[in-house]
Amino acid sequence: MGTIIAIDVGGTHLRAALYEPDNTQPIAHQRVRTNSNEPGVYERLEAVVESVWPKDGKVDAIGVASPGPLDPHAGYILKTPNITEWVNFPLAPNLSKHFNVPAFLDNDANLAALGEWKFGAGRGHHDVLYLTISTGVGGGVIIDDHLLQGYHGLATELGHTIVDPDGPLCSCGFAGHLEAFSSGPAIVKYILAELGAGAKSELKADANLSARVVADAAIHGDALAISAYRRAGEYLGIGVANFLHSFDPSIVIFGGGVSQVGPLLFDPFNASLKKRVFHPRYLEGLKIEMAALGDDAGLLGALALAQISIEK
Amino acid sequence: MGTIIAIDVGGTHLRAALYEPDNTQPIAHQRVRTNSNEPGVYERLEAVVESVWPKDGKVDAIGVASPGPLDPHAGYILKTPNITEWVNFPLAPNLSKHFNVPAFLDNDANLAALGEWKFGAGRGHHDVLYLTISTGVGGGVIIDDHLLQGYHGLATELGHTIVDPDGPLCSCGFAGHLEAFSSGPAIVKYILAELGAGAKSELKADANLSARVVADAAIHGDALAISAYRRAGEYLGIGVANFLHSFDPSIVIFGGGVSQVGPLLFDPFNASLKKRVFHPRYLEGLKIEMAALGDDAGLLGALALAQISIEK
Repeated sequence: MGTIIAIDVGGTHLRAALYEPDNTQPIAHQRVRTNSNEPGVYERLEAVVESVWPKDGKVDAIGVASPGPLDPHAGYILKTPNITEWVNFPLAPNLSKHFNVPAFLDNDANLAALGEWKFGAGRGHHDVLYLTISTGVGGGVIIDDHLLQGYHGLATELGHTIVDPDGPLCSCGFAGHLEAFSSGPAIVKYILAELGAGAKSELKADANLSARVVADAAIHGDALAISAYRRAGEYLGIGVANFLHSFDPSIVIFGGGVSQVGPLLFDPFNASLKKRVFHPRYLEGLKIEMAALGDDAGLLGALALAQISIEK
Repeated sequence: MGTIIAIDVGGTHLRAALYEPDNTQPIAHQRVRTNSNEPGVYERLEAVVESVWPKDGKVDAIGVASPGPLDPHAGYILKTPNITEWVNFPLAPNLSKHFNVPAFLDNDANLAALGEWKFGAGRGHHDVLYLTISTGVGGGVIIDDHLLQGYHGLATELGHTIVDPDGPLCSCGFAGHLEAFSSGPAIVKYILAELGAGAKSELKADANLSARVVADAAIHGDALAISAYRRAGEYLGIGVANFLHSFDPSIVIFGGGVSQVGPLLFDPFNASLKKRVFHPRYLEGLKIEMAALGDDAGLLGALALAQISIEK
C-alpha cells in the first residue's frame, strides 16, 4: 500500500499528513493557514508537504483533496471559490513534478465518500452514497467498490440536482437545486424571507443568524425555526429518493455541520424519503448513518485515493 | 466469448437467438407469442430456447432481458406488469437448472444500455447514459465500462426520479416523476386534460389518441400538440441535467418510440438542457445520439451481459 502523503486543501487551512502502510494514524501531521486571498498558496502547500516528508525520503504517492470544480483525471483545479489564484491550475502535476512521486487529486466530497467507504462508516459496503450538508450540499458515490468520477470528473454534484424547478436560486445561480433548500445558508435565507414577510419568531434578521442559531431556536420550540428544518428535510428526502432510484446504495452516510442537528432535520427527512421511494425494496437493508471520520475525512479520502491509484 | 443464447422477454413476444463468438448476427432466431395472461409463459420460453439450441449442444451461457422490477444478482423477477404469473419468480435459476448452463438476467433498459455500449451507438465510450422514451421512461448507465446495477439491482430507474414534486401522478402512483411528463401516455394525458379544460385543437379526446397522433398534429401546426411536446422536452431537459450532474457521461443515447419524433421533442429538450446544466464543462465533447440497435437492443444487451458475466 506504500507510504503516502495526504493533503487537504481547505479554505482556512492547508493540511498534510504522512501515512505508513496499513495505518490510518499519521506519523506526521502539519497545517498552515491557507490565507487564500494572499499570493503563494501553492508555495505554502509545498512547504507544509516538505514539513512532513519522511527522513528516509521514501514516499510512494501524494493524494490531494480540494474543493472543486476540478478535473481528477488531469489533476487540475478548474476554479475554486476560495483560492482565486488557482484557475486551470495543474495542482497534481505540479506536486508530482516537484516531489518526483505520482500525485492524485479529487474533490473533497468525493474523497470524503471514498474515505468513509474505506476507513469509516461505509466499511464493508460496496455501494455507498455520501452527502455532506453544510454551507453547500456535496455528494460522493461508490459503486461496486469504485469511486464514481465520470467522463469529465464532474459526477455526483448531487447538491446541484434539481428537486423543484420553481424553487429558489442556488449559490451557483441556478434554480431549484437541493443545495438551495437544504444547506445551512438555504435555511437562513428561508428564515430571512419569512421574517421579511412578517412571520413571528424569536429569531432576528441580523448578522448572527446561522443554521446553528436556527437549530437552537427550533429546539426551544420556535415554530418558524422548526418549519425551516422541516422544509430542508422534506427536500432532502426528495433528493435522496432520487439518488436511491439512481444509484441504489446499501448505505447513505451524512456528513457536514447541518447534519449534526439530529431529529430536527432527520425526522422530516425520513418521513419525506419513505413517502417518495417508489419501491419498498430500495429501503430493504438500507443503512442511514452519520459520517465517522469528522475533520479527517479529506485527509483519509486523499490517502485512500493515493493507495487505490498506485495499486491499479 | 463463448456461444450464447440471448432471450428477450416482451409483453407481446418471447424471443430467443443463438450467437456464436464475435458475431452479433444470430445463427438462429425464433419467437413465439407471450400470451402473457395465459398460463405457461415459462414453458413457452423454454420451448423457444430449445428451438434455437445448437445441434452440437454446446452453449456457454444464457442472457435474459426482461421488464422489471427484478433482482439481477439473484436472477429473480420480482413482479412484472405484463406476466402476472411471475411473482418472485426464479427465472435465471430455472433456466440455468433446466439447460445446465449459467444464466444471467437484467431489465430491458439496463440491457439496452449495455447493448448500445458494446455493439451500438455507445461503442468506444466508457461512461454512457441511455434513456428510452416510450410508454414509460427507462434508463441504463455504464460507468467506467461497467453496468450500474446497485445493491438491490434497482439502480437507474431514471424515469422514476422526481423532476417536480408538485407534478402529475406517474403510472407507478408517485407524483412528479420524469415519466409522468415525458412518456407517450404522459403526452396523451396532458392533451386530454387541456381538451377537457377547453383548449382548442384538431385533436379529439377519443380512443385513437396516441403520442404518435399528437406528433402528427404538431407537425401540422396544432398549437396544443406542439405545447405537449414542448412540455415533455422541457422536463426531459431537467431530468437529463440531473443525470449529467449525477453520472457525467460522455454520451446520452435515446431509444424508444417517442424519441423518434425528432425536433418536436428535441428542440425544447436541448434548450431546456442548456439552460439547466450548471457548469459548461458537462457539455464539452458530450454526444447526444439516437439508439442504433432498434428492436434487437434487448437481445444484444442480453448477449453482452452473458459474455461479460462468463468472462468475470
